[in-house]
Amino acid sequence: MKAATFITGAAGFIGSNLTDRLLANGEAVVGYDNFSKGREEFLADAVRQPQFRLVRGDILDEKALAAAMEGCTRVIHLAANADVRFGLEHPERDLEQNTIGTFRVLEAMRSHGIRDIGFSSTGSIYGEATVIPTPEDAPMPVQTSLYGASKLAGEALISAYAEGYGLRARIFRFVSILGPRYTHGHVFDFCRKLGENPKVLPVLGDGTARKSYLAVEDCLDAILTVFAQTSGEEEAGSKGFTRIYNLGTDEYCQVSDSIGWICAALGVKPELQFTGGDRGWVGDNPFIFLDTKKIRGLGWKPRFTIRQGVEATVAWLQANPWFFSRR
Amino acid sequence: MKAATFITGAAGFIGSNLTDRLLANGEAVVGYDNFSKGREEFLADAVRQPQFRLVRGDILDEKALAAAMEGCTRVIHLAANADVRFGLEHPERDLEQNTIGTFRVLEAMRSHGIRDIGFSSTGSIYGEATVIPTPEDAPMPVQTSLYGASKLAGEALISAYAEGYGLRARIFRFVSILGPRYTHGHVFDFCRKLGENPKVLPVLGDGTARKSYLAVEDCLDAILTVFAQTSGEEEAGSKGFTRIYNLGTDEYCQVSDSIGWICAALGVKPELQFTGGDRGWVGDNPFIFLDTKKIRGLGWKPRFTIRQGVEATVAWLQANPWFFSRR
Repeated sequence: MKAATFITGAAGFIGSNLTDRLLANGEAVVGYDNFSKGREEFLADAVRQPQFRLVRGDILDEKALAAAMEGCTRVIHLAANADVRFGLEHPERDLEQNTIGTFRVLEAMRSHGIRDIGFSSTGSIYGEATVIPTPEDAPMPVQTSLYGASKLAGEALISAYAEGYGLRARIFRFVSILGPRYTHGHVFDFCRKLGENPKVLPVLGDGTARKSYLAVEDCLDAILTVFAQTSGEEEAGSKGFTRIYNLGTDEYCQVSDSIGWICAALGVKPELQFTGGDRGWVGDNPFIFLDTKKIRGLGWKPRFTIRQGVEATVAWLQANPWFFSRR
Repeated sequence: MKAATFITGAAGFIGSNLTDRLLANGEAVVGYDNFSKGREEFLADAVRQPQFRLVRGDILDEKALAAAMEGCTRVIHLAANADVRFGLEHPERDLEQNTIGTFRVLEAMRSHGIRDIGFSSTGSIYGEATVIPTPEDAPMPVQTSLYGASKLAGEALISAYAEGYGLRARIFRFVSILGPRYTHGHVFDFCRKLGENPKVLPVLGDGTARKSYLAVEDCLDAILTVFAQTSGEEEAGSKGFTRIYNLGTDEYCQVSDSIGWICAALGVKPELQFTGGDRGWVGDNPFIFLDTKKIRGLGWKPRFTIRQGVEATVAWLQANPWFFSRR
């Protein structure tokens, strides 16, 4: 096996898509997942490839993590509790999986002298941003969700490791990602509910929340663009760096737009029952729209619109009904 | 005992000064400390007061913490690993004591429905600030120390709890604090070294680093000013808030200035041996100077200059030689 990329959360939505992409590019991948959210089915192709090795393990298990990392040259750390909505029901979960988990990944890397990392952060760290579209150097925000807080803490740890131990860190602040193997979020929820009852759709909030989304293919392009363009810097010696990039499209939509696209794709016309209020839940941000000039400056741009991303997600969910029934 | 203020780290430098201040004001205090850094001697007066209760315990022990908090109405959370310099030697320490410890404090508060918190954060979270003097809403910084990262994570958790559970949070970003019972930092180090050998003083860096300091009395005034002025808001219902204030003087000094004041106060003229470089250690910030307009807007201003703070610290260390010998 060649020098491999180590992917945490490899059986998840973005992780499995990234795994397939790297394998298709002829690269070697070690996938690490505890299958708490990840799905065997997502790695069905990968496990047949000689350049792929799957390790079942939890990122909180530093010993197992470090053992699995043997021989890897870079880490793309995607394992996380990725659902922003339910933090208040179990506040320790975000801390453990997103902050302490990231610390364990960093320590495992340090034990092997692995210096290259990519990290899936989130636009949620901007809280209720005062500057929209929000740039990477926005005024320091106040955190509004445990998810955002835990991811900001993960970023902070990674940056401190970059400064202190020479890590070369790429931090990606994602909007919500859409596409095949999408595992949670509003498109998933709406499709499931409409599958159960196509005549009525309950909607959190009043439908006016403005959000931005990115297709998973565009997300992978962006991650690999950044790694490709920072690889020259890897030769520059022992000093580490932290590069932070927002990832998103240059558009946003309202929840009601998205509902329209989903219903059109499914061919249903439900009555919409809004719960009301300008946000879906406590800690929800009614307007998320990231400034992506910085990553565009590297030559990347998204290939898909939000509508295309929503439609691709609906199409995948329609083609994979097992996915609803087996959760 | 009246409704008490719960102080974590009550046997530490700032905690014991705050304890004495509140007791002198006729308030009740429950002090919580694991005495890893805290000193019995610092609470020698407090333990003789009927309005003071001391509980030995670790903030990571959530059960003990919650039991001790019974009957308290607010928490001032000062317990921390407060030394920014040694993070890289034991990276788990900042995470455990500053981030996870803060989480345990928040959970203990939640278990009692205590909603008012003050938190000692740090100017170190600004990393190498691009705006100096640095305001609270500075552009989002890149973390350069595990200490700063762990405190930023603590802030983030507290803010998310304020949004999600209605906490009323006051976050204070301190410069280095000086004064009686000062337990670590450059004045301590220099006085100890000069006590051992008054002829030679080794100095980390080249002496040009610019830092800001605040006298502990001014720090306490600031904390209590903020609590007094946000107590009206406590009546406003179940919604929480996060108020963030920089604390510092409106001046800074160079390390070499401070050395001059220390040597003058001690009556010594050592040869200075600089290790060289513009910073004392990896992750050190060569220029820390905070914009304190926001807290000054509440009517607070410091009563002491940096030089007075340094001199008061030297005088206290001279009057308490036991403090060096028993560490």
